[in-house]
This record gives sequence, structure tokens and C-alpha cells, in this order.
Amino acid sequence: MVQQEVLDRTFAALADPTRRQILVRLGQGPATIGELAEPFDMSLTGMKKHVQVLENAGLVTTEKVGRSRRCRLGAERLEDAMSWIRFYQRLWERRLDGLDAYFTLRKEDDR
Amino acid sequence: MVQQEVLDRTFAALADPTRRQILVRLGQGPATIGELAEPFDMSLTGMKKHVQVLENAGLVTTEKVGRSRRCRLGAERLEDAMSWIRFYQRLWERRLDGLDAYFTLRKEDDR
Repeated sequence: MVQQEVLDRTFAALADPTRRQILVRLGQGPATIGELAEPFDMSLTGMKKHVQVLENAGLVTTEKVGRSRRCRLGAERLEDAMSWIRFYQRLWERRLDGLDAYFTLRKEDDR
Repeated sequence: MVQQEVLDRTFAALADPTRRQILVRLGQGPATIGELAEPFDMSLTGMKKHVQVLENAGLVTTEKVGRSRRCRLGAERLEDAMSWIRFYQRLWERRLDGLDAYFTLRKEDDR
């Protein structure tokens, strides 16, 4: 059983376009908070908050280098989030199968 | 390009254990707000709020039937959320490939 809190933190971290964009940026290589903030025209404080949410979800790691904080992609690979979505998709398909079966039965009744 | 707002709403809707459990329950068939609230020992008002978040994300649809509100799984199949996670996983793997290449080079330098 996947830890619910891990899923909570992961999905919450992904529920923001800026945070998703930060992950895409860090996929190209490490960056400081300042470098991350620049394209968003965002304050360092605002960017720090977003990075902290990603760090709490294990999606980003940070380390102090001199006077700046260097960020890189973390160890969390979203496997649990992916598994949950796959599970949901199977539920959804089964619901459709149920509807198919229902309409097939109806058709047979109509004959 | 996937609409960012759809992703925002979908991931936010999934970032709660009760809401994920509601989706699993509705995978077994439709239920009223009261039926959904019962196993969680939750007020109807509390459950209505959760259902509304799921409804706004397209994960649940509801209809008034007499004095109660019937809920069922909605049309949203999480395809966009799945695509985004897959995209992220490819980024992550590429980062690892980069590290692999780095360590291979280091090893060759050490010889």
C-alpha cells in the first residue's frame, strides 16, 4: 500500500503550473533560486516557497553553495503517482465495460 | 499543449486521501453523497465539498435524484495527468543518463 501522505504531497506539488515548469527547467540541469525565478519574473521569496513545496515532496533537492541555493531534480520519480493513476484508469475502463454489458443486455431484451 | 488549468485542477483534486477513496468507491458504481460520507464518518457538508472539487476537475458527475444527489465517475480519464508524469519520468531518466555518462568519463580518466 502506497503511503497516502506521499501521494498527497506529490499531487499537491504538481498542482501548480510554475512548479511543473521548475521541474522541466531542472530536467535540463541544476539551477539557483535566482536562475529559476528569472523567467517567471518572480521574487526570490516566491520562488523559494515553490521550491520548498517541491523539496518536501522529494521532487527537488537543494544545497547551499556560497551565498546561493542550488536546486536539482530529487529522487522522487512519481512512480507511486503513476501507479495510482493507472489503478484509476483500470477502474474507469471497468465502469465502461459495465455500461457496454448493460447496453448489450438491453439490445438483447429489445429483440 | 495540455491546458495548464486542467492539470492544476486534476492534480489538486487527487492531492487528498478522502477524494482518492471517493473515486475508488465510485469505480464500484454510483452513490449518493450520504452513502459516500458514511464510511468516512464525515458530515454531508464536508463530503459535498470534496465531491465538488472532484466535479470541477471532471472526475465526478452528479445529478439531483429526488432529495439526494447521485454521484458517478466523470469523463476525465487522467490522460493529461498521465502524459505529464510520463514526460517528467523521461526528463528524470535523461538526468540519470547524464550522471551515468559523467561517472563513465570519470572512470576512464582514472585509468
